[in-house]
Amino acid sequence: MTLESNNDSHRVSTQRWFARRGEITPAMRHVAAQEELDPELVRTEVAGGRLIIPANVNHMGLEPAGIGAVARVKINANIGNSTVKSDIENELEKLRVSIHYGADTVMDLSTGGDLDAIRTAIIDASRVPIGTVPIYQAAAMVDNPEDLTADLLLSVIERQAKQGVDYMTVHCALLRRHLPLIGTRLMGIVSRGGGILARWMVHHNQENPLYEHYDDILEIARRYDVSLSLGDGLRPGCLADASDDAQFAELTAMEELTLRAWDKDVQVMIEGPGHVPMDQIEMNVRRQKELCHGAPFYTLGPLVTDIAAGYDHIASAIGGAMIAWYGADMLCYVTPKEHLGLPEQEDVRAGIVAHKLAAHAADVARGRAGARKRDDAMSRARADFDWSTQFSLALDPDMARSLFQSAASADCAEDGRACSMCGPKFCPMRGLKDIDWAGKSF
Amino acid sequence: MTLESNNDSHRVSTQRWFARRGEITPAMRHVAAQEELDPELVRTEVAGGRLIIPANVNHMGLEPAGIGAVARVKINANIGNSTVKSDIENELEKLRVSIHYGADTVMDLSTGGDLDAIRTAIIDASRVPIGTVPIYQAAAMVDNPEDLTADLLLSVIERQAKQGVDYMTVHCALLRRHLPLIGTRLMGIVSRGGGILARWMVHHNQENPLYEHYDDILEIARRYDVSLSLGDGLRPGCLADASDDAQFAELTAMEELTLRAWDKDVQVMIEGPGHVPMDQIEMNVRRQKELCHGAPFYTLGPLVTDIAAGYDHIASAIGGAMIAWYGADMLCYVTPKEHLGLPEQEDVRAGIVAHKLAAHAADVARGRAGARKRDDAMSRARADFDWSTQFSLALDPDMARSLFQSAASADCAEDGRACSMCGPKFCPMRGLKDIDWAGKSF
Repeated sequence: MTLESNNDSHRVSTQRWFARRGEITPAMRHVAAQEELDPELVRTEVAGGRLIIPANVNHMGLEPAGIGAVARVKINANIGNSTVKSDIENELEKLRVSIHYGADTVMDLSTGGDLDAIRTAIIDASRVPIGTVPIYQAAAMVDNPEDLTADLLLSVIERQAKQGVDYMTVHCALLRRHLPLIGTRLMGIVSRGGGILARWMVHHNQENPLYEHYDDILEIARRYDVSLSLGDGLRPGCLADASDDAQFAELTAMEELTLRAWDKDVQVMIEGPGHVPMDQIEMNVRRQKELCHGAPFYTLGPLVTDIAAGYDHIASAIGGAMIAWYGADMLCYVTPKEHLGLPEQEDVRAGIVAHKLAAHAADVARGRAGARKRDDAMSRARADFDWSTQFSLALDPDMARSLFQSAASADCAEDGRACSMCGPKFCPMRGLKDIDWAGKSF
Repeated sequence: MTLESNNDSHRVSTQRWFARRGEITPAMRHVAAQEELDPELVRTEVAGGRLIIPANVNHMGLEPAGIGAVARVKINANIGNSTVKSDIENELEKLRVSIHYGADTVMDLSTGGDLDAIRTAIIDASRVPIGTVPIYQAAAMVDNPEDLTADLLLSVIERQAKQGVDYMTVHCALLRRHLPLIGTRLMGIVSRGGGILARWMVHHNQENPLYEHYDDILEIARRYDVSLSLGDGLRPGCLADASDDAQFAELTAMEELTLRAWDKDVQVMIEGPGHVPMDQIEMNVRRQKELCHGAPFYTLGPLVTDIAAGYDHIASAIGGAMIAWYGADMLCYVTPKEHLGLPEQEDVRAGIVAHKLAAHAADVARGRAGARKRDDAMSRARADFDWSTQFSLALDPDMARSLFQSAASADCAEDGRACSMCGPKFCPMRGLKDIDWAGKSF
């Protein structure tokens, strides 16, 4: 055990703890205002575990956000360098791009370079919650995954918690008894964290150290209010492996971990697939919500086909929109570089906008109060040929304006009441704008 | 009536006519082979109106394709110039791009230039079915929509039929009695054809000439085997107008037109929205299939949000994947330029790949036999680090290869058994590839 011994070591400061004591925190008030909800509703949802507010006590400048059933669907953008690619400035620029285009949280998945320095820089610069996968840093510190120790893992988790990380992916639910279930898979394990832990378990023939030391992780989490994101190390990496025994065995193990986290007043969400054909998406959400007692669901896509390399942000936006409509609470973005390489800034932008679109479409379909206001304002601006309002309401105003300008031609009416799509003569809205349909008799 | 009087004027040569006589045509055999179906099943589906094979007797070099419940989901790409933009060579290049990236049919929506010459060039160059909206050419021949006459419309329809157009959008179901229903809409009419006809009806205070002369249209269609695509002139142009009285009044009118077409052995499909929130998509398909007795459904998207300007191909791919899963038979693509301008070649490519992805995901979710083969082959290639097979199986091999190469770095293992996403050390598949999971005891 590497927990520091000081007087604060058993202090609990989680949003869940306050919520269960009936206390509405400033973070809850902030989320209530953002989501246009009653603060008391936010409190009861946090107390019930259906809403989390990842807000590390050491993350200064954070604007807390809620992830859960009553909140708008959130999206996460992954950034982070690998061993040789990228540097701090580049990562900070990716962070700015992410927040600019609407990422609600950002995960720093760096695996190379000065990890602590990159993370500190990202936390300091970010007003949105920051997530990490601590096992990446631990693995970077040893030659082989087999050399990892529980002490090392816990010390990294604590270091990152102290730095102000708001939520952490921990693959605690991938157990030794699940490994034989991988044998029937087409693609085996595709999760980096899951892969590292599986190798460790095979080599040592021992149980997952993150499961064995789950109570220690909870102690750290409750002290800094790190929300746990229970990682799905056995998420399917292709349609053929979707919804298989391995995936659901791990999900089942998450129930116990959810209840144990709640028991310690630690906030928790559940990570989900991955690659799932459309007809299995609803079932995946229902099962997660049922097994994990309504804990928020944070999914990677899912991708609805395996053949979209170069366009996987679209495959993921399709699955993401559907799973969020059915009840998922946060979507991890996927970029056009998925399966091909590390995303650069333009990929980050494309990934974020695609998933922001998906999340918004889900909010509309879920009938969330006010979700359609922006759509209706856009439609009114279209009917009025008010181009600048259209650009400002678009998910990516710069893109909308630049495509419009590149297409503009003599076909666009001089008064702006037509665009090059139809031209003024064929524009249905221009030709009919002034007819009083309802007042006419036909 | 402008129908030519010759001995052939009453000859019927439609696939439906042959199918109902129990005859399996070469076109049906071709479709059966393409779709891996029994030719007799293809025949009965064509006879029952649930499958159409748009194949104009004058379209030489056509490879017939089937659109309907038993066939794979198809996608259409719109090309065509407007009054000043584009020329024949540019349109032929868009045609090549469309077919290269997988468009199953192409609509020529040209509204300017030498329309007959462009159309002839496109039909001659195309092995996929070509669709048109004849009212565009008719409208281009007059100063104002109000100047259109039934004779002009019919003569254009016949000219295009003779040229070899395989299917035509005709907005016959937009009736005078529907116009007052537009009064409550946020965006009114957004269909070009619908807009032209509405103006005509308001001005002349007469019924839609395409409805009044529907029997004449059927005579032309049955002679050349032009499939009719009943256009939805009242499709919603925004979420606020989705599934409203105007939309469904027009859909209801399509039932009569479907039965009248079938009665004359004319093949017919139904056009659908448009802009629809996710929670209304399934209902839209069910209603169309029920009202129109299983006639194929050809939808434009639908877009699941109005705020995606610049990314509407993604908003449309989400709605398109869902509606095709629920039962739509062909998706009209939408490009990133939707709502902003006329698409250029790169937009055409992006639109096609996004919708090909959506259609394929729907085929997989519908459990169509063999649909997942390509996904599984891709996943096997991924597990084997077989990059060239991955590229060749991707929807857009050029894009996949180029993104991979642009991201390649020292992080990619020299043996190719890792990419820059995770790098060799963190690659879960590399580290675990040789473990015999099923054979191990844990």
